[in-house]
Amino acid sequence: MKRRLLLVSNSTVHGGGYLDHCQRDVRLFFGPDVKKILFVPYALHDRDEYTRMARDKFSSLGYDLLSVHEAADPVDAVRKSQGIFIGGGNTFRLLKSLYDNRLLCEIRRRVLEDGVPYMGSSAGTNVATISISTTNDMPIVFPPSFSAIGLVPFNINPHYLDPDPNSRHMGETRQQRITQYHEEPETPCVLGLREGSMLLVEGNKATLLGTTKARLFTRGRPPVEYDAGSDLSFLMTDAQ
Amino acid sequence: MKRRLLLVSNSTVHGGGYLDHCQRDVRLFFGPDVKKILFVPYALHDRDEYTRMARDKFSSLGYDLLSVHEAADPVDAVRKSQGIFIGGGNTFRLLKSLYDNRLLCEIRRRVLEDGVPYMGSSAGTNVATISISTTNDMPIVFPPSFSAIGLVPFNINPHYLDPDPNSRHMGETRQQRITQYHEEPETPCVLGLREGSMLLVEGNKATLLGTTKARLFTRGRPPVEYDAGSDLSFLMTDAQ
Repeated sequence: MKRRLLLVSNSTVHGGGYLDHCQRDVRLFFGPDVKKILFVPYALHDRDEYTRMARDKFSSLGYDLLSVHEAADPVDAVRKSQGIFIGGGNTFRLLKSLYDNRLLCEIRRRVLEDGVPYMGSSAGTNVATISISTTNDMPIVFPPSFSAIGLVPFNINPHYLDPDPNSRHMGETRQQRITQYHEEPETPCVLGLREGSMLLVEGNKATLLGTTKARLFTRGRPPVEYDAGSDLSFLMTDAQ
Repeated sequence: MKRRLLLVSNSTVHGGGYLDHCQRDVRLFFGPDVKKILFVPYALHDRDEYTRMARDKFSSLGYDLLSVHEAADPVDAVRKSQGIFIGGGNTFRLLKSLYDNRLLCEIRRRVLEDGVPYMGSSAGTNVATISISTTNDMPIVFPPSFSAIGLVPFNINPHYLDPDPNSRHMGETRQQRITQYHEEPETPCVLGLREGSMLLVEGNKATLLGTTKARLFTRGRPPVEYDAGSDLSFLMTDAQ
């Protein structure tokens, strides 16, 4: 399997600029052979402005960026892409637009069969997994399904957040929400990627990168912490 | 219109017990004529345990509680109900179960036509509105629609949370999420009910109760704060 993925928890860390914290990883990931990256801006409302920001950043890293919303035929744009980057925003809006534009199958085919490198950030990381059922976003639009592109056999919770011991707020903690997900039958593992962390997938090898730990939730078992640098390849088998 | 609703932001405030903070309002709302309340525990996984907790509380307030999950025919239980209480938990799970059990129309009819008093807490407040599109919950199951019971012509965000100025977390604030909702066309007002607040609806009159302010979001306009005690009846007209 040629699969190559860079699944980033969040596009911006506190006090930094857009994709600054992972720019070294982005450059290593796409490498010198990719010249032009196809950007998917569907998660934000203002696609032009979003594209401008992403284009500036990728230009500074040496890559041309074409946005799929500027393409006459989005499916054809995926078919011809050398690399794909799906940015963050609202996950429901993103997934609905992917369905509306019939892009899920084509992205899946290009990444899994043709080895086109796929980078996702936040919502773009959610849609790379089995489903968007562990997004943090509001369901502002109704997609035809929560099933996503399915480039990995588990789910991710981006922007994973530890409980604040001083909080007086009574809404569920992130861990409680994921536990509720695992009360449902046959739900997959959920990797909680804290801000600053990302998952690099190369074939069947998965490695945690970045500066923070990740927390893995498996149905019926206690959560487990993994340090940056951990080999998480065991997640890549379906039998989790 | 006979409509009577008590839409509570949250079932428990920090340091208190289940429904303690609103028990006086609950008693005033259901009054002495209602003897038995129909409870809907669908938002939590363990319906028996949830019913036990709610039954203890309502018993202490002088009401018998029948849970719809204990009824042989849930639709018939709604048809015969004197009062309805839908508790909190996961809003997607709750709404899906309401659809699965074909309860939405019957609850709507009983409340709007027969004047059966309806109390909701958290997720139970979400499903009383136009849609669940402004819930805070994870989409752990896929309901057939986000459209809800529609007892009021606007949406509510329960557990409304102000941004923490000291936070370094980069996930969207609650206000940013609601703003994203309002980027979508023809989206209704969203009433952000902070923990400790609730909305009392009697016919076409709506009053903010409780101990905290509420924040109203209208598409294309700046948000507005309302003190406890405010008359929010203007929300009850469809032309918001």
